[in-house]
Amino acid sequence: MSVDARLKSLGIELPVPPKPVASYVPAVLAGDLLYLSGVLPFQDGQVVITGKLGQEVTVERGAEAARLALLNALAVIRHELGSLDRVQRIVRVVGHVASAAGFGQQPAVINGASDLLVQVFGEAGRHARVALGAAELPLHAAIELELLVQVRL
Amino acid sequence: MSVDARLKSLGIELPVPPKPVASYVPAVLAGDLLYLSGVLPFQDGQVVITGKLGQEVTVERGAEAARLALLNALAVIRHELGSLDRVQRIVRVVGHVASAAGFGQQPAVINGASDLLVQVFGEAGRHARVALGAAELPLHAAIELELLVQVRL
Amino acid sequence: MSVDARLKSLGIELPVPPKPVASYVPAVLAGDLLYLSGVLPFQDGQVVITGKLGQEVTVERGAEAARLALLNALAVIRHELGSLDRVQRIVRVVGHVASAAGFGQQPAVINGASDLLVQVFGEAGRHARVALGAAELPLHAAIELELLVQVRL
Repeated sequence: MSVDARLKSLGIELPVPPKPVASYVPAVLAGDLLYLSGVLPFQDGQVVITGKLGQEVTVERGAEAARLALLNALAVIRHELGSLDRVQRIVRVVGHVASAAGFGQQPAVINGASDLLVQVFGEAGRHARVALGAAELPLHAAIELELLVQVRL
Repeated sequence: MSVDARLKSLGIELPVPPKPVASYVPAVLAGDLLYLSGVLPFQDGQVVITGKLGQEVTVERGAEAARLALLNALAVIRHELGSLDRVQRIVRVVGHVASAAGFGQQPAVINGASDLLVQVFGEAGRHARVALGAAELPLHAAIELELLVQVRL
Repeated sequence: MSVDARLKSLGIELPVPPKPVASYVPAVLAGDLLYLSGVLPFQDGQVVITGKLGQEVTVERGAEAARLALLNALAVIRHELGSLDRVQRIVRVVGHVASAAGFGQQPAVINGASDLLVQVFGEAGRHARVALGAAELPLHAAIELELLVQVRL
C-alpha cells in the first residue's frame, strides 16, 4: 500500500504545505538527507494551538498539536519529494514543547507525532527522538517539530 | 564574484573566529557536512548583546545579535575551509532566542542571520531553519546560532 | 587500547542502555552517521538528578548529571554498534541544561560530558558542541544530551 493510500485509510488529509515568508526555505536536501524547517501546528494558515503545557494546554491537546504539526511536515515532505513513498526512513524528530514551570511530560506530548509516524510509515517511521521543553515558541505555538528524513534518491 | 569580495562589497569584515576553551572544537567535518558549534554574538572576545527578547532587548537589537553571531559563524567556516567559496550550501540554521514570557517573534529576530546568508551566498544561502525560544543562553547571550554547511570537497 | 579497556582503566562501568517505551528508538543509523535519541541522567531506570541549575542544582552536580547522561549515551552506542571501537568520531553534542532565570554557565555544566568524551575517545572525542538553557526537561531532568556519531562501517 502506498503511503498516500495509508493516509487515506487513516482518514488523514494533508494541509497545504506552509510557505516560509523569509530568507529560508521549507526543506533542504543534502545527499540523501532532507532537513526540514521547524513546523508549527498550522491549519489554514494559522497556528491553531497556542499556549503552554502545564498551564492552559493539556497533555491531550498538546499531543493533538504535535500531530497537527506533523501533518504540516508530511505536507512539506510530499511537496519536496513528489511522493511520500520516497521516504526511506524518518531519521530524527526533535519536539519542542512550550512548557510552564514544573511541566515534565514532554515525551507524552510528542507521542502525538511519533505514534502517527509509525502508523503512516511502519518500521521506516521509527525514529531517534529528542523531547524538550521550550520557554517560548514562534507565534506562541504550543509545540514545534524538527524532522530529518532519509530519502530514496 | 568570490564570497570574500561580496563580503567586502557589503562592507563586512569578519571577526577573529572564536576559540572554544574546552574539550570541544569550533567545527567538525563529517563527509561533506560541516557541523558548527553554537555561536554567540561575540565581538573582541566578549558577548556584546545580552538579555532577553520581550524584556530588555528589542526585536531590532535581537536581529543585530543574530547578524553578529552569524559573522562569527562565517569566520569559523572560513577558518575551517580556507575559503568561503568552498561553501556549497547552507543546509540548516537553528536560532535560539533568549525569550521572556510571552515573546513570540523569534522568526523576526533570526531573520537578522537568514537575510545576511542570502546576501552573502545567494541561492546557496537559502537554508532550512528552526527558530526557538530559549529560557537562558550561555553567558546571558541574547541569541545563539547553530549552522550546518555542505562543503565542496 | 580498546575503548572498553580505556573505560575500565577510568573505573567506568556503563549502565544498561535505556529503552524508549514509545514509537521511537534509541538510535538510527543513516549512512555512517548514528543519530541518538535524547539521553537523560538515568541510573537503574530512574532520572536521578532533577531540578534546575541556578536554583537547587549546583554547577558541579549539573556536570555530574551531564557525565551520567553521557554514560547512558555510550551504553546506547555500544549496544547499537556492538563495540565502542567502531566510533570514528563524535561529531556533535547538544547539551540542554534546565536553567532557572539568570543562569548562564551552561558550558561549564556540559563540560561534564565533553571532558569525558575526550578521555574515552581521545582526539576522536573532540566534537562540535551547542550548550543551551532549557525551560523544562522531560521527567524534570537537570540535563539532556543529544549525540551525533560517525561510525566505521
